[in-house]
Amino acid sequence: MASMAVQFVQSSNPFQSFPQIRKTQLNLNVNYSVSLHSRYGKKNNHRQLRVSSGLIEPDGGKLVELFVKESQKYEKKKDALSIPRIKLSRTDLEWVHVLSEGWASPLRGFMRESEFLQTLHFNCLRLEDGSVANMSLPIVLAIDDLQKQRIGESTKVALFDSADNLVAILSNIEIYKHPKEERIARTWGTTAPGLPYVEEAITNAGNWLIGGDLEVIEPIRYNDGLDRFRLSPAELREEFTRRNADAVFAFQLRNPVHNGHALLMNDTRRRLLEKGYKNPVLLLHPLGGFTKADDVPLSWRMKQHEKVLEDGVLDPETTVVAIFPSPMHYAGPTEVQWHAKARINAGADYYIVGRDPAGMSHPVEKRDLYDADHGKKVLSMAPGLERLNILPFRVAAYDKTQGKMAFFDPSRPQDFLFISGTKMRTLAKNRENPPDGFMCPGGWKVLVDYYDSLVSSENGKVHLAVPV
Amino acid sequence: MASMAVQFVQSSNPFQSFPQIRKTQLNLNVNYSVSLHSRYGKKNNHRQLRVSSGLIEPDGGKLVELFVKESQKYEKKKDALSIPRIKLSRTDLEWVHVLSEGWASPLRGFMRESEFLQTLHFNCLRLEDGSVANMSLPIVLAIDDLQKQRIGESTKVALFDSADNLVAILSNIEIYKHPKEERIARTWGTTAPGLPYVEEAITNAGNWLIGGDLEVIEPIRYNDGLDRFRLSPAELREEFTRRNADAVFAFQLRNPVHNGHALLMNDTRRRLLEKGYKNPVLLLHPLGGFTKADDVPLSWRMKQHEKVLEDGVLDPETTVVAIFPSPMHYAGPTEVQWHAKARINAGADYYIVGRDPAGMSHPVEKRDLYDADHGKKVLSMAPGLERLNILPFRVAAYDKTQGKMAFFDPSRPQDFLFISGTKMRTLAKNRENPPDGFMCPGGWKVLVDYYDSLVSSENGKVHLAVPV
Repeated sequence: MASMAVQFVQSSNPFQSFPQIRKTQLNLNVNYSVSLHSRYGKKNNHRQLRVSSGLIEPDGGKLVELFVKESQKYEKKKDALSIPRIKLSRTDLEWVHVLSEGWASPLRGFMRESEFLQTLHFNCLRLEDGSVANMSLPIVLAIDDLQKQRIGESTKVALFDSADNLVAILSNIEIYKHPKEERIARTWGTTAPGLPYVEEAITNAGNWLIGGDLEVIEPIRYNDGLDRFRLSPAELREEFTRRNADAVFAFQLRNPVHNGHALLMNDTRRRLLEKGYKNPVLLLHPLGGFTKADDVPLSWRMKQHEKVLEDGVLDPETTVVAIFPSPMHYAGPTEVQWHAKARINAGADYYIVGRDPAGMSHPVEKRDLYDADHGKKVLSMAPGLERLNILPFRVAAYDKTQGKMAFFDPSRPQDFLFISGTKMRTLAKNRENPPDGFMCPGGWKVLVDYYDSLVSSENGKVHLAVPV
Repeated sequence: MASMAVQFVQSSNPFQSFPQIRKTQLNLNVNYSVSLHSRYGKKNNHRQLRVSSGLIEPDGGKLVELFVKESQKYEKKKDALSIPRIKLSRTDLEWVHVLSEGWASPLRGFMRESEFLQTLHFNCLRLEDGSVANMSLPIVLAIDDLQKQRIGESTKVALFDSADNLVAILSNIEIYKHPKEERIARTWGTTAPGLPYVEEAITNAGNWLIGGDLEVIEPIRYNDGLDRFRLSPAELREEFTRRNADAVFAFQLRNPVHNGHALLMNDTRRRLLEKGYKNPVLLLHPLGGFTKADDVPLSWRMKQHEKVLEDGVLDPETTVVAIFPSPMHYAGPTEVQWHAKARINAGADYYIVGRDPAGMSHPVEKRDLYDADHGKKVLSMAPGLERLNILPFRVAAYDKTQGKMAFFDPSRPQDFLFISGTKMRTLAKNRENPPDGFMCPGGWKVLVDYYDSLVSSENGKVHLAVPV
């Protein structure tokens, strides 16, 4: 993976390619470079970015960023030496990242019990002014009995990463019981064993949750060659404003992009233009946090997206590619609300929702965990998301008569081929080609290379996590 | 049980006792008679009851009653002969009862999928005008594959009771999948086996749900001698208006009343008077639908309530005793919202909430299913219940120094004795007496008699459903 990340860096030096931008230049580097410019061109200043009044308002009216001011850093770091410490897991750190940049605005830190309960029961928070913000996933920090005991009467704790670097301070803390079974049941609608996020972050987590006000010392970096794609909501808003976007439509994904996705994204732009918008901009927003073992890893997905964009399927002038730092719950209708809500905070006023968003197979039974239509139905009714325009997917499939991905025509079903994610992965794993026109050849090669790398890294054994 | 019901009827002839009401007459019959008067004094006219503008507005602004007009009954009954039939279980019938009288206003029938999903995910429904009504329990009707097949393309079905009497017509129907596991997980926060309502009404129910507009032919009667206590929301509202209530405080219970409850109810009235109300009226509102096997059955509870009121512990002038027809879910924080919301529709603007409302022991693990404080917390934050004043219980316990139930004084915990429901039942079962002042002797005798009746009805074997 590390080598792939290096390749990525090499292929997109922002400071060179940015000034050369031309509308006809269908090269992903342009997008990336723009993104990079907004992040690094104003390095260390990103809390001062102005949020455009032309974009949709963040939840709660104001984008909440939780970084310690430069002038207070010394004192905060000194403070941190004398208060109880909590070591963060990778997933905890991803949530600190999410909170710090305001994706979960108006949340100001890990949830206290009142926020946790509202999230579990109502999927939304009532704000002080009586208005309602959507919040469907608990953003919580678990601690165990020993940690609780060590915290004692302290009103603050210091959060450290796995390499013992100070990450943040959590103040005005509240410690309350972690009702794991209830949390799982209400979030996933099942308690079956084998839910990836549950096994990663809940089953072995502590029996207490600690909430409070978060103050993050430095912006979170992963140093994996992909940090430059991790644009904060403020940075995305600045980018949309710079591009004079009068509509922003977000496309969440955690899979390789095929031409059906591209068709959909381009068709969405066409529809928005028809609606009278002058410059709708696409936020192509792959999820970058925890994913399950058989998903294609982020670095490979980013490489695949790059190839797809190089291939000219999407217009870089009207596309912003960035990474959404949240971990993945695979909690279907509950999670899709989070995916949508976070994109409001990043400036998106249109959200594309497909079949079975954030869904997966039932971990025990032979069926999908969620009804494929529930995600879009729940999303369209969710409290706090009334301002967001929900754009349900039209189903795209491979049209054998045209030799390309097209919107499914129910009057001639025999002409269409549905290629599931599992089917796609199986083909790539076996080095077989999909039908022409399913995915651009460069993008497909990335997938084949990824599965090859698994086989070679396992000395010829097929990686067990890949479903067949 | 039947003989007990007869005794009940004998002891409260409304048409005799109502005109004799005197303020000093601390006799339950007065309450019951008033209730009876409002129900039977206007027999067959109760849809025309005027809802007082002085009471809290029903959810959605209007109390929804779903009875067929007298003039249309003949035609509806004729219609019902030619449409597919569904036979209702006892629990289904209780929900028809609940819906028909408007406890679930503004719901107009069994839930369609959009209502079902909003209930599961948000515990509330968004109404056409954009406002929000609380709705935390799915009120749904399950059918199996064969029934679905029989319904075919029909847009209506006729609902029959177990004795094949036509109960209602459901029109503009929508049939959708019954996601049992998800329904259970999101409603109870667990999927552990042994949840009473799940075993009664979900596990063996069909795999489809059928929603639609409900039209009920005749008010639901159970002919168990207790129908006269089953006042509809409209009847209760009329009664509160007749009594010039300027505040109505509801007390939901499914257990025998002890002096701790009475202390609480009287103290609540005192506090409301202090707040400036002139005539706060108590709605003492035992739940009358499905309960678990080891709860004291409704007929015995009503008999026990009668004795408690005869004993003068509560003032009949300011107390209305009636039966809440809903089945019990034992779904803790989720269910307490339903209990509160339904009482708004009956005119209550204050709701007393205790420790662990609608809770029970975890069916598998050795702990309570819910955190004892979550119910009141969730209730106080629930969307759609903002208009309701939540009155959290002060904890009452037996004060050994005073020889009576009193509010717990944390400065002298050694003086207090906590008598749990399980402890109370064990004492009664063993014909032992609780400490003097825990419950009036007449009320206690009813409990002892109930457990005696179980033993005798089982020929000397202790009834297994009674916990020890």
